[in-house]
Amino acid sequence: MSQKIQVVLEEESLRDGLLAESRLLGLTEKLHIVRLLKDAGVKRLQLGSFGHPRSVPQMANTDVLVSLARKEFPDLLSTALVPNEKGLERAVHCGLGLASMSVSASDSYSLRTVGRPAAEALELTVALIGASVKAGTMSRAGVQCAFGCVFEGVVPEETVLAFVDQLVAAGATEINLADTAGMANPLQVERLVAKVRAAYPEVELSLHLYDTRGLGLVNMYAGCVAGVRLFSVAAGGLGASPLFTGASGNVASEDAVNLFHGMGLETGIDLVGLCRVVDYYETLLARKLPGRMNRVLHSQPEALAKLGF
Amino acid sequence: MSQKIQVVLEEESLRDGLLAESRLLGLTEKLHIVRLLKDAGVKRLQLGSFGHPRSVPQMANTDVLVSLARKEFPDLLSTALVPNEKGLERAVHCGLGLASMSVSASDSYSLRTVGRPAAEALELTVALIGASVKAGTMSRAGVQCAFGCVFEGVVPEETVLAFVDQLVAAGATEINLADTAGMANPLQVERLVAKVRAAYPEVELSLHLYDTRGLGLVNMYAGCVAGVRLFSVAAGGLGASPLFTGASGNVASEDAVNLFHGMGLETGIDLVGLCRVVDYYETLLARKLPGRMNRVLHSQPEALAKLGF
Repeated sequence: MSQKIQVVLEEESLRDGLLAESRLLGLTEKLHIVRLLKDAGVKRLQLGSFGHPRSVPQMANTDVLVSLARKEFPDLLSTALVPNEKGLERAVHCGLGLASMSVSASDSYSLRTVGRPAAEALELTVALIGASVKAGTMSRAGVQCAFGCVFEGVVPEETVLAFVDQLVAAGATEINLADTAGMANPLQVERLVAKVRAAYPEVELSLHLYDTRGLGLVNMYAGCVAGVRLFSVAAGGLGASPLFTGASGNVASEDAVNLFHGMGLETGIDLVGLCRVVDYYETLLARKLPGRMNRVLHSQPEALAKLGF
Repeated sequence: MSQKIQVVLEEESLRDGLLAESRLLGLTEKLHIVRLLKDAGVKRLQLGSFGHPRSVPQMANTDVLVSLARKEFPDLLSTALVPNEKGLERAVHCGLGLASMSVSASDSYSLRTVGRPAAEALELTVALIGASVKAGTMSRAGVQCAFGCVFEGVVPEETVLAFVDQLVAAGATEINLADTAGMANPLQVERLVAKVRAAYPEVELSLHLYDTRGLGLVNMYAGCVAGVRLFSVAAGGLGASPLFTGASGNVASEDAVNLFHGMGLETGIDLVGLCRVVDYYETLLARKLPGRMNRVLHSQPEALAKLGF
């Protein structure tokens, strides 16, 4: 029997997806979402952020959510954003599986989001990764604006690669390149992925792509062709940087699943199960989300059944 | 100086884009759209359909529109859908540049749209192409549902290739593979494109992709990598088969331009000019269209200026 290529989707709707929502989700609602995602086959799940509850009230219940999710689903890889030392303490305390640290390669974006130039934010991130490694927590390092910045335009490849060098040296075992502004094009994705993979073949490389300009799935496809097997997604395409108006959010998990299954790859995720999560989000948030496959499923159920979904 | 690769976009908003609209556009409105498109650099434009005005009232003014557009813009390649002999007469009479004939590779879709099984519709299309060639009109042959059908699921590649054989033999100088139901995936596009190009290297191959499942641009990218240089698009992503509810229409012209320019290819089309057309459609139709770049342009004008748009 031929082995299918496996692609892992990290579900980020509970973190990046909810970051800009005014409707705060309670613990029971979030736990219901975790269960629906687990039922659908999601194995890696970003549960929230350990930022200060005053800055990210949407994520105030992350500690409890991580503890409860770990207890109920020991085989789930729980991840969360860890912005500082205090956040790392909380993450370690509740037994988080993987800590995600992140820094912007664009000065302007860094100044607007964390009030520091990128070089200074990088130093702090490097120290934080060191502390995370020391605490025995798996550490992923993200580079925001890795493919461009609305404030600066092009972000030079060399800048991104220099950031990656420092983040790997600090001990990160995974590098996540984020197209925060949705400005990447597929040739650029191929090129940068090839360079990072060549420099650090032993480091896991993941991509966090945005669909702002309609190229989220195009760039995901190009990344996959270039060898990436781990992608950040969010059910329904939920989420968008509040700094970028007009942004239309993450690549929808269900659309990514449809792409990869159509290509004959495996994600371990059930499309119909995933669409139940989208339905639930749409009920909670009282609006339609931009992802496509949930709408297709509701309007063409027989068509999908014919294709084995 | 290095020569950039040229991609041609056939603008289909005035035909496929308006086919399902209840608001009928008048001649003055359509002519204004033609002028805006021409200003933006569009060189190939589908102006309407020569179907019976009772079946397609949206296209009733196609004859006059073609005549006026030809007179005002002699260098514009005017195209239109020609469904039958009577339509061909009208097309020839008003001096249409290129006649587009089309047939479904799926029986179920063919029965539902033209009331005939696909084989029978193919015979009629072959005869029509013959008549068009005889009349001295450039002839493009389209295969609908070339990548799948919501009613039948998978449409076998051999069926599509057999259709292409007959359409080329009839005298078509261009083959247009249409993903009518938006079901293609990029590997499938690459595979079918490679086969048709290998069989008929002298025939122009174009793709008409739909974004129903969010893969319109992904498949366009895959088609381009496989060597296709001619694509059907519609400003704003206007248009969708009325048979497929949940369908979200054509690939938006402005998003295709952004993809290709980002890759360093040339389309000869100005993104900002194209967005003026989208604005006008949105005013006429009193709703937002699904294309992304117009929204990005309105919300991040400085960002686009920085990238040279």
